[in-house]
Amino acid sequence: MTTSGFPPSAETREQAGLLALVRDEGPMARVELGERLGVPRARLAAEITRLAEGGLVESGGPAASRGGRRSTLVRLADDLRFLGVDVGATSVGVAVTDGRCEVLAHAVEECDVRRGPVPVLDRVEQLAAKVLQDAPGRLAGAGIGLPGPVSFRDGMPVAPPIMPGWDRFPVRDRLAGHWGCAVTVDNDVNVMALGERHAGVAKSLDDLIFVKVGTGIGGGIVVGGRVYRGVAGTAGDIGHIKLDDYGPACACGEAGCLEAYFGGAALARDALTLARSGRSPYLAELLADRPVLTARDVAEAAQAGDFAAVTLVREGGRRLGQVIASLVSFLNPGMVVIGGGVSRLGHTLLAEVRSSVYRRSLPLATGNLPIVLSELGDQAGVIGAAWLASDHAFSVPA
Amino acid sequence: MTTSGFPPSAETREQAGLLALVRDEGPMARVELGERLGVPRARLAAEITRLAEGGLVESGGPAASRGGRRSTLVRLADDLRFLGVDVGATSVGVAVTDGRCEVLAHAVEECDVRRGPVPVLDRVEQLAAKVLQDAPGRLAGAGIGLPGPVSFRDGMPVAPPIMPGWDRFPVRDRLAGHWGCAVTVDNDVNVMALGERHAGVAKSLDDLIFVKVGTGIGGGIVVGGRVYRGVAGTAGDIGHIKLDDYGPACACGEAGCLEAYFGGAALARDALTLARSGRSPYLAELLADRPVLTARDVAEAAQAGDFAAVTLVREGGRRLGQVIASLVSFLNPGMVVIGGGVSRLGHTLLAEVRSSVYRRSLPLATGNLPIVLSELGDQAGVIGAAWLASDHAFSVPA
Repeated sequence: MTTSGFPPSAETREQAGLLALVRDEGPMARVELGERLGVPRARLAAEITRLAEGGLVESGGPAASRGGRRSTLVRLADDLRFLGVDVGATSVGVAVTDGRCEVLAHAVEECDVRRGPVPVLDRVEQLAAKVLQDAPGRLAGAGIGLPGPVSFRDGMPVAPPIMPGWDRFPVRDRLAGHWGCAVTVDNDVNVMALGERHAGVAKSLDDLIFVKVGTGIGGGIVVGGRVYRGVAGTAGDIGHIKLDDYGPACACGEAGCLEAYFGGAALARDALTLARSGRSPYLAELLADRPVLTARDVAEAAQAGDFAAVTLVREGGRRLGQVIASLVSFLNPGMVVIGGGVSRLGHTLLAEVRSSVYRRSLPLATGNLPIVLSELGDQAGVIGAAWLASDHAFSVPA
Repeated sequence: MTTSGFPPSAETREQAGLLALVRDEGPMARVELGERLGVPRARLAAEITRLAEGGLVESGGPAASRGGRRSTLVRLADDLRFLGVDVGATSVGVAVTDGRCEVLAHAVEECDVRRGPVPVLDRVEQLAAKVLQDAPGRLAGAGIGLPGPVSFRDGMPVAPPIMPGWDRFPVRDRLAGHWGCAVTVDNDVNVMALGERHAGVAKSLDDLIFVKVGTGIGGGIVVGGRVYRGVAGTAGDIGHIKLDDYGPACACGEAGCLEAYFGGAALARDALTLARSGRSPYLAELLADRPVLTARDVAEAAQAGDFAAVTLVREGGRRLGQVIASLVSFLNPGMVVIGGGVSRLGHTLLAEVRSSVYRRSLPLATGNLPIVLSELGDQAGVIGAAWLASDHAFSVPA
C-alpha cells in the first residue's frame, strides 16, 4: 500500500474525527467542527488545510449565520470515491459511492462463487471499471464482503465452507494492487450489518444483531458501534447452531443445524418435496416449467397463499426465532435486523420470528426491542463495504 | 459522593493510566512508567506528585538499575483499601483488599437474599466493619454484585426475579452514604467474570464468557476487556434460554428454561425424586437424616459414584453444553469459564460440557478454546467487586 500521494488518509486523531463527522453528518461549519471535536481554532485551521491539500475535504461555501461573523462550511471533496463490493454465493454486486458512502452507481450480476477467486475477482474488477466510468472520481479505498469466514487482519478468506478454491487466497492484496488503494476484506454479514447501521434501518444504533438468511444463514454483531468479530473472526456464525442432533444433514458435515432447516438450499429441497408430493399445487405447477425450485419460488407460493408454502415459511421462522431468542437473551441488543434473500418471505416470516422472540426472551430484554426487516435490501452489502473502506481511510494508521 | 478529600480518584487520563498500570503490574520504575504511558518526564513527575498528595501512590524505593541513574519505584499506597461484596441467593461474602485487589480479609456467611434489602445490607455493613478491623486502611471505594438484573447506571436492582423487595432499592446510595466512598453495583455474574479476568484463570484475557451455575444460571460477557451489559443491562441472561416448550416449570413463569433443568433448585428437586424412588441409594441414605436435599448432595453422591446422581450431572452438563455451544458459535470467545456452586460437580460436569461444545461448534471457533472451571471459586465475586471499585476510582470522572 502506498502512503504518500493519493489515496490519502487521516494522519492525526483530529483529522480522523473531522472526516468521520462530515461523512456521517454532512457539510459542517468550521465553528461547529471546532466545538464538536474540541479542537482550538488555529489547530483546526491547520488540520483542514492539510486535508484540503490531500484532496480529502473542500470548502462548501458560507455557513448559515448564527450571528456574528459567518463561518465557512467544510465538506468531503466532491470527487472522492469508495468502492463497495458484495460477493454472495450466487451473485456479485459492485457500487461506487461518494465520500459519504452514498451510492452513485451500482451493478449486480449472477456469479457463482464456486467458480473460484480468479474468475470471480476478474468479474469484480470489470464491474468496478464499469461503475467507475458511470461515476468517475478519485478512488480513496475499497471494501469487500465475502460469504464465509474471513481473516480481517490478513484480508483473506479462511477455510470457507461454500467457497472452494478461496482458502487463504490473498483477496486484499490482489485488489489493492489492481486499484492502487487500500482494500478492506470482511465477512458479508458484518458488511451488511454496517450498511444498515450507516444508512438503513439501524441508523446510528450502537448495539444490534443483523441476521442474514440467504443461501446460508449468518449473523453480524455490532457492539458499541463496531463490528465484533471474536477471537478467530468467526463471531456471528449462527447458521450451524444445532437444533436437533438427529435433524437433516447440513453442508458443514453435521446434522440438524439451523441452516439445514431454513437456509436457501434447505427451502429449495423442501419445495421440491412439496411439489412432487402434490401437497403444494402452486409449487407443483412451477415445477412443471423448470428442473428445480428455489427459495424465491417458496416466497412466491407463500405470497399467493399456498398453504404448504406458508407452513414451510412459518416453521422456518419459528426455528429462526428460537435461535434469535437465545441471542437476544444473551446479548440484549438494541435491534434485530433480518436481511438476505430469504427475507423476501417478508411479513409472514417476520411475524413468526417476532412471536418466537417475544414469547421466549425475558421482558426486560425485549421491552424496547424492534425486530425488523432490512431496509437496504440488495444494497446493504455494497453500502456497508464502502463504509468499511471509508472507516479505514478516515482512521489514523496504527 | 464527595469529590474532595479522601477517597480521591484519578483526575486526568495520565493519572488513571498510571494507577491501573501499578494495580495490574505492581510497583514500577518512573522511567518505565513514562515509557509505558508515553508521558514526558516533567509531566509524569507532576502527576505522581498529585497522586502522592492525594494518598493514592507512594515511593517504593529505588528500582533495579538498568545502567545510568537509578529510577525510583512508584506503587499504590500501602494503606489503600477496596471493599468487594458478593451477595448470592443464599450467602453474603465481604472482602477487604489492598489497592491491587488482593484479598486481605474475607468473611462469608449464610444469608437468604429473600429477607429483603434492609436486613441483608445491614449484614453486609456488619461484615464489612469486621473485615476492615482485620485489615484497616483508607477505604477508596466499594463494589457489590447482586444475584439479579441491575441498572449499572442507577446502582440498583431492577425487577429481580429471586429478590423480593429489592426492586429499585437504592443499594449504591445507601452503602455510599454509610461508607463515605464511591460504590459500584453490578450483576453477580459480571462481577465474577471480572474477578477471573483480574486474578483467576482468565488473567488478562480480553474476550471470554463466564457461566455461573448456582441457584440460578447466568452468563457474564467480557468483550475487549470490558463487561458487556447490553442496552438494558440484561446481557448474559442465559438461564432462561428455552430448551423445550414443554419442559419443567421455571421460577420465571415460563417452562423448559435451562435453569429449570440444571439450576440448583432443579437439581435439589431431581435429587429428592431419585432418593424417594430408591433409584439413588446414596441420596436415599442422605435423605434419611434430613428434610430436603441440595445440589451439594448431588455433587457428593456423584463423587461417590452413585449412578443415578452421575447420570443427573451428565444430563445437566449436556444441556448446559448445548447452550454454551450456541454462544460459542455466536460470540467466538477466547475462553469459557464455569463457576458458581454447581461447578463443584467438577470434572464430570466439565467433561459433558466440553464434549457438547467441541462436537457442536465449528472447528474454527473451538480450535483454541479452553473450557475451564473457575479458579477463584468463592472469591471470584468479591475480587471482581473490588476490581470494579478500583476501576471506578482509577478512571477519569466523566
